[in-house]
Amino acid sequence: MRSGKILVAQGGGPTAVINQSLAGVVLEARRFPDIERVYGARHGVRGIVNEDFLDLTQETSHNMELVANTPSSALGSTRDKPDVKYCQDIFEVLRAHGIGSFFYIGGNDSADTVRIVSAEAQKAGYPLRCIHVPKTIDNDLVGHDHTPGFPSAARFVAQAFAGANLDNASLPGVYVGVVMGRHAGFLTAASAMGRKFPDDGPHLIYLPERTFAIDSFLADVKTAYERFGRCVIAVSEGIHDASGAPIASLLAKEVERDAHGNVQLSGTGALADLLCEEIKSKLRIKRVRGDTFGYLQRSFIGCVSDVDQREAREAGEKAVQFAMWGERDGSVAIKRIGDYAVDYELLALDAVAGKTRVMEDEFISASGTDITDAFRRYLRPLLGSGMPDAFRLRASPVAKVRGK
Amino acid sequence: MRSGKILVAQGGGPTAVINQSLAGVVLEARRFPDIERVYGARHGVRGIVNEDFLDLTQETSHNMELVANTPSSALGSTRDKPDVKYCQDIFEVLRAHGIGSFFYIGGNDSADTVRIVSAEAQKAGYPLRCIHVPKTIDNDLVGHDHTPGFPSAARFVAQAFAGANLDNASLPGVYVGVVMGRHAGFLTAASAMGRKFPDDGPHLIYLPERTFAIDSFLADVKTAYERFGRCVIAVSEGIHDASGAPIASLLAKEVERDAHGNVQLSGTGALADLLCEEIKSKLRIKRVRGDTFGYLQRSFIGCVSDVDQREAREAGEKAVQFAMWGERDGSVAIKRIGDYAVDYELLALDAVAGKTRVMEDEFISASGTDITDAFRRYLRPLLGSGMPDAFRLRASPVAKVRGK
Repeated sequence: MRSGKILVAQGGGPTAVINQSLAGVVLEARRFPDIERVYGARHGVRGIVNEDFLDLTQETSHNMELVANTPSSALGSTRDKPDVKYCQDIFEVLRAHGIGSFFYIGGNDSADTVRIVSAEAQKAGYPLRCIHVPKTIDNDLVGHDHTPGFPSAARFVAQAFAGANLDNASLPGVYVGVVMGRHAGFLTAASAMGRKFPDDGPHLIYLPERTFAIDSFLADVKTAYERFGRCVIAVSEGIHDASGAPIASLLAKEVERDAHGNVQLSGTGALADLLCEEIKSKLRIKRVRGDTFGYLQRSFIGCVSDVDQREAREAGEKAVQFAMWGERDGSVAIKRIGDYAVDYELLALDAVAGKTRVMEDEFISASGTDITDAFRRYLRPLLGSGMPDAFRLRASPVAKVRGK
Repeated sequence: MRSGKILVAQGGGPTAVINQSLAGVVLEARRFPDIERVYGARHGVRGIVNEDFLDLTQETSHNMELVANTPSSALGSTRDKPDVKYCQDIFEVLRAHGIGSFFYIGGNDSADTVRIVSAEAQKAGYPLRCIHVPKTIDNDLVGHDHTPGFPSAARFVAQAFAGANLDNASLPGVYVGVVMGRHAGFLTAASAMGRKFPDDGPHLIYLPERTFAIDSFLADVKTAYERFGRCVIAVSEGIHDASGAPIASLLAKEVERDAHGNVQLSGTGALADLLCEEIKSKLRIKRVRGDTFGYLQRSFIGCVSDVDQREAREAGEKAVQFAMWGERDGSVAIKRIGDYAVDYELLALDAVAGKTRVMEDEFISASGTDITDAFRRYLRPLLGSGMPDAFRLRASPVAKVRGK
């Protein structure tokens, strides 16, 4: 069994349950008498190279539990994407502090960092155990049934569309809601879980897994609007044309890229506004409204899946158990073993790092603008208990007396 | 005591609890044996002139309770603002159906409709009781301590900013959240209820009660950013320059107006995007993100204040009681009689109709970019029970060993 110190850090975009994984690592590690210290690095890998550590061994269990229930990364996060030199720096700091196990909670870029640090340690013959703990609202990790953080964000999106559909039914028109997801449409597809009655929206769903063409978009909207007298539309921020260029980036005056070379898609309402303008001007529909869900969908406090909380916690716990009793580095993956039950397995870092999962074809309808029952079955158990529900009046119409 | 039929309708923008008031009217009216029918008009006043009625006497109590807990107007709504001719039409339909009491759930424009219909009935010598049941997320009804719908929207805004603050603390930068509210800043001010620790955002709050100038805005942001290393900003969609022109309308290519002559402010991300661009270009801050809360804040399913639910229900019940046993028409207003307890009074329609309350000066800080303790005391009890809470790590820093 391993001993010494352990270090945990959080990378990338925050989620509603990322601190559950942090608490899972910290509280599980504190059960092992041979682990002398549990350190947390502030603001991810940047905090490691800056030696900006907190001693989480000196945190109360009670406060850890309260932090676990608080959304967003309690240690702080970073968008830094380490290159090999940066990873060598990380490794040197870990060695200088006598860190025996390194846990990085993040997405596929964070998994890549873990992979490089792991390789550096091996090259140097330093006995470091490196574990990637999954976290991403995009649900885009290869080999993972789903990722902690996605179910809670999906629940927010489903609840948002359930409400937007009711609003739109009350004051009919066209509503466009833009959802996060650069390459993977899972979160946008979750909008369908807000539907209940056959005429409920979203009536159209546009995913980055399919090519977006403005002409067929307008034709789809026209058809739905004529059929329902209104139209609710879910659009992924990552929709792109046939050449792969994001529709959002075609609009931006100055394209902003992060350290990973990704074009900045969120934090602007431009895509929703463009689509609304097209609908207003081409289809001559007067009441057209667009919302960009933006940061609300990943950080809203008070909209969380209890299943997601539990799994995020277990992913952190399992990470420590894999590190303590396992023989290799890896990425902790949720594996679905029942309807509904999960287990956790340790995937090779190579199988996850830097790779992107997108929605499987079986999850997308033939039309390309809806999801399938297979997706509904996949997502439903993840949303957790106590999903709010919508009901309608069903009273009988009254005969007119003025014969209008 | 009055007898005959009653008619209820819902007008204006939906809220999370407007169906509680509907259920309050319907279920309370059904207790009176002399009320032979309870009709609901679909899509507000438009449904009245079109004689588009549902017989709510034939609705089950159980389903009424389920509908009461569903956000958005179950009967449908309208943006029609009736002129005198339109109100005469309404009155003729009410007379043709033998309606003895008319209940209209809505904001100050709806109160104005009730006022004109009431006057028409009096002129014609027809014994019609007309009651306005309050509803608006803007909280802008004169003489009302607060209005049903506002507390739940305020809770959404407070939770949204609590989350946005945590997100921004984890990945520091500038965050701008644009909140609904054309003339009244109550809902934007609710953002402050998401704060807990002294350095929590929103660090700046811009209300329509104060003149907005881009230069002092940028100076405020610069100061806050230098102080906190980040800045979270709440902005009302109704902010305007010294001439009273909305900042949002200065941007719109083509200004859209509703039947009430109001410029369309929501359903576009333009204001947030403009402010973000200004901050990026003038203050040279790289990470600047803007969200427009849009329709989520009034229709999100699953974020509701239990106090708001209860009061919206009671406002509907009291409306029927005032109609049955009272001697005059009016607007049902919540009156605060304890900390915290309310009663309901019937205000004259003239005192409410077409008037707009804005935030009292005692609620706005001297700086003009924050709220006061008086506002916190005013709003806190309305948000209801079970507000989610945020916690932080408080662990001790670890000494550096590499001396960087």
